[in-house]
Amino acid sequence: MILVLASCTPINQEDKPTVDPLPSWDEGETKASIIEFVQEVTNEESQYFVAIPDRIAVFDNDGNLWSEKPVYFQLSFAIDRVKMLSSQHPEWENEQPFKAVLENDMNTLMTYGEHGILQIVMATHAGITTEEFEDIVKEWLSKANHPRFNKSYTDLVYQPMLELITYLRNNNFKIFIVSGGGIEFMRVWVEEVYGIPRDQVIGSSIKTEFVIENGKPVIKRLPELDFIDDKEGKPIGIHKFIGRKPIFCSGNSDGDLAMMQYTASGDGKRFMLYLHHTDSVREWAYDRNSSVGRLDKGLDEALDKGWTVINMKEDWEVIYPFELSKNSH
Amino acid sequence: MILVLASCTPINQEDKPTVDPLPSWDEGETKASIIEFVQEVTNEESQYFVAIPDRIAVFDNDGNLWSEKPVYFQLSFAIDRVKMLSSQHPEWENEQPFKAVLENDMNTLMTYGEHGILQIVMATHAGITTEEFEDIVKEWLSKANHPRFNKSYTDLVYQPMLELITYLRNNNFKIFIVSGGGIEFMRVWVEEVYGIPRDQVIGSSIKTEFVIENGKPVIKRLPELDFIDDKEGKPIGIHKFIGRKPIFCSGNSDGDLAMMQYTASGDGKRFMLYLHHTDSVREWAYDRNSSVGRLDKGLDEALDKGWTVINMKEDWEVIYPFELSKNSH
Repeated sequence: MILVLASCTPINQEDKPTVDPLPSWDEGETKASIIEFVQEVTNEESQYFVAIPDRIAVFDNDGNLWSEKPVYFQLSFAIDRVKMLSSQHPEWENEQPFKAVLENDMNTLMTYGEHGILQIVMATHAGITTEEFEDIVKEWLSKANHPRFNKSYTDLVYQPMLELITYLRNNNFKIFIVSGGGIEFMRVWVEEVYGIPRDQVIGSSIKTEFVIENGKPVIKRLPELDFIDDKEGKPIGIHKFIGRKPIFCSGNSDGDLAMMQYTASGDGKRFMLYLHHTDSVREWAYDRNSSVGRLDKGLDEALDKGWTVINMKEDWEVIYPFELSKNSH
Repeated sequence: MILVLASCTPINQEDKPTVDPLPSWDEGETKASIIEFVQEVTNEESQYFVAIPDRIAVFDNDGNLWSEKPVYFQLSFAIDRVKMLSSQHPEWENEQPFKAVLENDMNTLMTYGEHGILQIVMATHAGITTEEFEDIVKEWLSKANHPRFNKSYTDLVYQPMLELITYLRNNNFKIFIVSGGGIEFMRVWVEEVYGIPRDQVIGSSIKTEFVIENGKPVIKRLPELDFIDDKEGKPIGIHKFIGRKPIFCSGNSDGDLAMMQYTASGDGKRFMLYLHHTDSVREWAYDRNSSVGRLDKGLDEALDKGWTVINMKEDWEVIYPFELSKNSH
């Protein structure tokens, strides 16, 4: 089944296994340490061999598998939804944080912080069935473009991470996304873009209810938080959905620190991988002072514990898949 | 990966595919309808062909994959825990429903209904780490015996259902357990007994918290309900964990009716399978008036909608795996 899914993704450019599983990675220590880890845990002769059911890898999504600037892509979706729904909500013209959204005033919007974002998400993601929500996300993704790159949001995934996912999958790892983003927002596109099945996505969620509507059973989305899959919520989500401690953990912000610590706490070899955004030219450079994707305590602990830190500027020869087709011209 | 897991289960007695995928099933309409369904949805030439990622099958557990009489097996576990912990809780001698448990007074215990069971579960399943809980369940399973059969509880799984799971898995179905039972209680043994990975188990849960205890990150179980995976909770759980509507649903009680309706509501061919406990000699016979595993509204709807109903007495030539080794003598 894993092989079949892998063949569904548009990312796999070749059917034959290549000699180099991570061609977009620079030939440095970071790449070498990943390959060494995978070889050790999959080698039956090694003292660090790990049986297949225990080969669990978890990946954060925003800023780790795709970009997250200037704002989380799901927030762009929610902002577009506010604008689209505003004619049904004349009161939003005078009500924050909706007023800021309608006036494209991102600075004011940001002063409302996480609570403001949640208000927008609740107002725009609830009150509809799960099937309707899925159609709305699909429709948005097919039309929306990223303001800087003028590309679809799903074009802004990281080529080196796609290679890493494929490499781990080919070594019988079961790969899960563990993201603060909305579980239902991600499920619409992760299968096609990453080759990761929907049921291997863990994310934040709102409550739902099962109702019979016009004789048809549907699941309705309610304007009430169910679970926030961030910080300490990540190991909780991992335990709830997977029921096993991962041996490989990949993230990019302080929101991933708890799941890094949880992964590190097991026996045997473990791999903790932080992505440090250091490329202000090809992507963005940010860490300790960023409001989106802050990496501060996580960076300290990574350096202290000797976890692997990707220096995006140095370690990645390619960032986005579309660079590959450009290079081939 | 699926093949590897299948080879881990002690149930697969042969490496070669057999001609008959369901040898413990009587050659009647029930068996024929299952095989016809699987052939149709896996035949690329058929108008009912279903792509592999959509081949989702869900199975209830208690009374559907293993027995549930005289009480849910997890309740037996909780009762044994009450007795074991009673020396630390002298107050239980005068406090219901604990008093009834300590006096082996099941009739009085049953008068406290679902709320009483929850009180016992909370008192005996919380306040410890998830790893400690797993060890306790393992220890109990290795020693406890079922009062009627004097066998381990995990010996009381249904041989025909093991064959059905293997048959669906061999046809690239992804199989999930969707049970009102505790998710962490089940995960300890389902992989070995059914060959179903831990992350493909959905169940009721209590809340947990992530804490650093003596420098080590652990997940602690809290005495607070998180999610009840029963009745309308089942489609909610399916949507939350799987994110796809199943095409095959197997259950045995009114608690499974909502997930049957949800499964039936999709397009194309779907298979809804109710197990009717009709064998008072080899197992138990019960339905509309049973306090455990009541099948009343579900049976009416199955008959009304033409869903498949297994008549245990007629359709199953073997019930438990241990009958097979007896027969071979």
